[in-house]
Amino acid sequence: MSDYIAPLKDMLFVLDLVRQQTAMDQVEALAEFTPDFVAAVLEEAAKFASGALSPLNQIGDQQGCSFDQGTVTTAAGWKEAYQQFCDNGWMGLAMPEAIGGQALPKSIAQPVNEMWLSANLAFVMFHALNQGGSEILLHFGTDEQKQRYLEPLASGQWTIAMALTEPGAGSDLAATTTRATPVGDGSYRIKGQKIFITYGEHDMAENIVHLVLARTPDAPAGSRGISLFAVPKYRIATDGSLGASNDVVCSGIEHKMGLHGSPTCSMSYGDNDDCIGELIGAENKGLMAMFVLMNEARLSTGMQGVGFGEQSYQHSLRYAQERTQGSHFQSGARVTISQHPDVQRMLLSMHSQTMGLRALGYLIAAWIDLSEHSEDDHLRQQLRERIALLTPVFKAFSTEQGNQMSYTCIQVFGGMGFVEETGVSQFMRDARIITIYEGTTGIQARDLVFRKVLGDQGVALQHLLRDINQDADSLAAPLSQLQASLIRSGAAIHGQLRTLLEMAAKDSDQTRLHAGSVPLLEALGLLCVGWQLALLANQAHTRGDSDAAYHSNMIALARFYFAHEMPRIHALMSTVANADDGLKDFDFTAAG
Amino acid sequence: MSDYIAPLKDMLFVLDLVRQQTAMDQVEALAEFTPDFVAAVLEEAAKFASGALSPLNQIGDQQGCSFDQGTVTTAAGWKEAYQQFCDNGWMGLAMPEAIGGQALPKSIAQPVNEMWLSANLAFVMFHALNQGGSEILLHFGTDEQKQRYLEPLASGQWTIAMALTEPGAGSDLAATTTRATPVGDGSYRIKGQKIFITYGEHDMAENIVHLVLARTPDAPAGSRGISLFAVPKYRIATDGSLGASNDVVCSGIEHKMGLHGSPTCSMSYGDNDDCIGELIGAENKGLMAMFVLMNEARLSTGMQGVGFGEQSYQHSLRYAQERTQGSHFQSGARVTISQHPDVQRMLLSMHSQTMGLRALGYLIAAWIDLSEHSEDDHLRQQLRERIALLTPVFKAFSTEQGNQMSYTCIQVFGGMGFVEETGVSQFMRDARIITIYEGTTGIQARDLVFRKVLGDQGVALQHLLRDINQDADSLAAPLSQLQASLIRSGAAIHGQLRTLLEMAAKDSDQTRLHAGSVPLLEALGLLCVGWQLALLANQAHTRGDSDAAYHSNMIALARFYFAHEMPRIHALMSTVANADDGLKDFDFTAAG
Repeated sequence: MSDYIAPLKDMLFVLDLVRQQTAMDQVEALAEFTPDFVAAVLEEAAKFASGALSPLNQIGDQQGCSFDQGTVTTAAGWKEAYQQFCDNGWMGLAMPEAIGGQALPKSIAQPVNEMWLSANLAFVMFHALNQGGSEILLHFGTDEQKQRYLEPLASGQWTIAMALTEPGAGSDLAATTTRATPVGDGSYRIKGQKIFITYGEHDMAENIVHLVLARTPDAPAGSRGISLFAVPKYRIATDGSLGASNDVVCSGIEHKMGLHGSPTCSMSYGDNDDCIGELIGAENKGLMAMFVLMNEARLSTGMQGVGFGEQSYQHSLRYAQERTQGSHFQSGARVTISQHPDVQRMLLSMHSQTMGLRALGYLIAAWIDLSEHSEDDHLRQQLRERIALLTPVFKAFSTEQGNQMSYTCIQVFGGMGFVEETGVSQFMRDARIITIYEGTTGIQARDLVFRKVLGDQGVALQHLLRDINQDADSLAAPLSQLQASLIRSGAAIHGQLRTLLEMAAKDSDQTRLHAGSVPLLEALGLLCVGWQLALLANQAHTRGDSDAAYHSNMIALARFYFAHEMPRIHALMSTVANADDGLKDFDFTAAG
Repeated sequence: MSDYIAPLKDMLFVLDLVRQQTAMDQVEALAEFTPDFVAAVLEEAAKFASGALSPLNQIGDQQGCSFDQGTVTTAAGWKEAYQQFCDNGWMGLAMPEAIGGQALPKSIAQPVNEMWLSANLAFVMFHALNQGGSEILLHFGTDEQKQRYLEPLASGQWTIAMALTEPGAGSDLAATTTRATPVGDGSYRIKGQKIFITYGEHDMAENIVHLVLARTPDAPAGSRGISLFAVPKYRIATDGSLGASNDVVCSGIEHKMGLHGSPTCSMSYGDNDDCIGELIGAENKGLMAMFVLMNEARLSTGMQGVGFGEQSYQHSLRYAQERTQGSHFQSGARVTISQHPDVQRMLLSMHSQTMGLRALGYLIAAWIDLSEHSEDDHLRQQLRERIALLTPVFKAFSTEQGNQMSYTCIQVFGGMGFVEETGVSQFMRDARIITIYEGTTGIQARDLVFRKVLGDQGVALQHLLRDINQDADSLAAPLSQLQASLIRSGAAIHGQLRTLLEMAAKDSDQTRLHAGSVPLLEALGLLCVGWQLALLANQAHTRGDSDAAYHSNMIALARFYFAHEMPRIHALMSTVANADDGLKDFDFTAAG
């Protein structure tokens, strides 16, 4: 019963705010995407998400993928849905027109992505792979390589697989051992094992282009000796037709807690010394190519938190409005559980989080559009700084909250949530990986504190806090409570920032900074979501009576968030200030 | 690889504190259970938990139970382990000697239970059922009934099943529709459907005694018309031998997210009008009998949170100490992840929560012992008040934290945690039901606020806060930071209590009280865990050099908790004060 209905009204309301916040309509390259056009695209996507993808979600969970002697078969109906997805042109939605895409701005592709992620994350993972892989090829490929790969990727004829992780190495790419030996004709013989390769093998597309990190014979040790190679499953002739198998073999798929529908493959490259790859970009610069991809991959993964939040909220709301249990605390009448205040608390906690995170996710996407298309150099620079600062915050905070919301959803369902048939346990099982892949929460927090905050002496963060303060000042008078709380919360973080900068400058032992990095990230996430909700409330206030019930609910949502979530910022600041308390003295070798 | 090792040292350290806090040695009936005796019992239990139960945990998860035409077969090895469990006398450990039990006090049975719960919760659920069912029969059964049922239950020859929930009714027992019609000979003909019956059918014991809630023909409507019946699977002759089948049929088992090893049954009673039961206690007083059980069941479920916490901690620690990844933030050397401060943060968050919750759980058990065995009337009364106040707090807070810790455990494992083979995803899947069964977190919070706090004008809570303050005052000087924080936190809750009492007195709309009940419960949980950790630190400080590394770690643990968790109390008090903000104005009928 995991029926997804795209929250188009909420999405368009958020997009209106983003448009107004960023003034993106004033940039020529973006102005052509009018609100009416966007609404039409979103409506089409909503139909496909609800009609084609959502019904396959539970089927994928229950059937999973099957593995047999190197081949992987996806669940019933998946192959057909893939073909439909490609035929409808969804694969190339945000890819350049030159390669057959539709070149939609990221801020418009983002709500479309949200629908895919909500409706069926396991299915749609190939989309982010093709999108990201194409970006790498666009940035680093030769003209010939672009010619060879991009069109079939944009059409979905081929898919991308990212072969980064090796057995025993996890997030530590510096430890890569896969080898790439020059053949003499400019190509390389690839040999090595990779694990955790999403859609490394499957039955939905004609060919799979593996982007493989490997070391050339005389590469320096560590992260500076890693190169990137394109390694197709089937060799590609100069005319683009497919040739023989390229000694790329799937040796097994993982039995996972969730995302059963998407195969997570172990791959062997060159077991028979017959695996040929071509270098993408410069030798030894493979990680740089990956880092280009990483920001967008993190943004897209952050949106998965929104996707799970929306699914959790809408399933909980529907169930709570159907399920009669207990009597009302005032009237004594038997009521649906949606009338118990504690259930309402859970519903609003999901709904407010999701709305605020959605706004943040769309906003970052719009900043990316502007940073690419604006003609204002200063603005572009500022936006790049802002994107760099908030990408790890959004990725980590949104995915953590997405998990929490899928947990809350089961709580609303009670015992029925623990039973697989209702479909909501799948949300929680599927969501569990999103705080881990594309860089764990701890890795995002480390990036935030050391690169993004301390790396520029707190300047980018100060700019953000200044802008939030300005936005708070601009709120309409009836929202003065939100205004005061927003200013207080920003000030608490600002105060702590000064302490952090001092600490970093004089303290050689940075344990406290490390141990406090996740709490700091969480506080920034809370602040940003509160900020966006306050702006959404302000927009609702401004629009007033045009759709009174909707606008009044939007204001209520922000007020709820400010009462139930924002106070945690102050608690977190206290934790950041004392984060190494006890931790520094605890002797782990004496434990256990 | 879900190998459980009982943390005997931690358990005994906590028991020492409990013994000292409660002065239970001075009560004659409890004095005979010397520390040496207790240590010996715990050592035996630890062997059984690690040797027999833990190895079956993942097997149960993977194989689950199979259902075929009314029969349920448990996983390989479970039947044999059950026999061993019974042969070793573990079933009757805390049951009276008169019925073949060993009459151990609850405070000693509690750490033993913790080991069972940690090692294999799905398996050992029959134990709480037999324990609880026996208590009901002891309290409400006739002499003849006690004679008939108790010995086979204490030995494990028979098991208990609790048949409360009906399709569509959930926690709402007032909606019970199962009928019980007098036959004329004092027995009743039972007819109805029940769902979610743990071990309602299985292959491990000779007979299953179902305790069934049902209505007699002229019973009043609602919760005052529900009676309790004992309904054996096989009829029992006067000599205790088993006779014909009693028209008790398992119609299916649930496909659940976790706890696969324990069958959750749908039961049909009297499909062929041939199901005979006998009344337990007075007619229409069935819910009262259930409520007797409920406090202990809640305490035992709260311990499940500790069980998952311990498993999560010890698996995470072991993994983090083995897994080399990344380089140290200071030395740059390649290190195990246990040397990254953010991983240490996660480890200590699990370890400190678990230690503090353990201390609270053992303490409540000791209070129950004293409330039964002390000769001081005033003390007994005070303890009953304290038990009533903290049981819902412990149940809800510990199970929520247990879930959070199982989530954190996967985070420490990274991608490997998402893969089923490491066994840690099972902890998270199994744990997901414990905040729901035996009364959801929301139901516990409602009980806390309306019955336990407002019901006595806050007196019991004030007594608790006073005692915590006194204990804070008694902390050794080097723990002055903990002391100050504990006093400040207690004062914050005390201040909010006054507001709550005023609100309840004058405010006819109690939405705010309802919407703030879970946050209030969480704050009390944090305070109690902090209190216990401070006392453990104080005990460690007092013992000092005798086991310096262990004692120093115990102090570090408390300090960590005070830095990372206790500040939330102040945020939660702010939320309690504004809990209906937005929530009261949100129109759910206009949403979704």
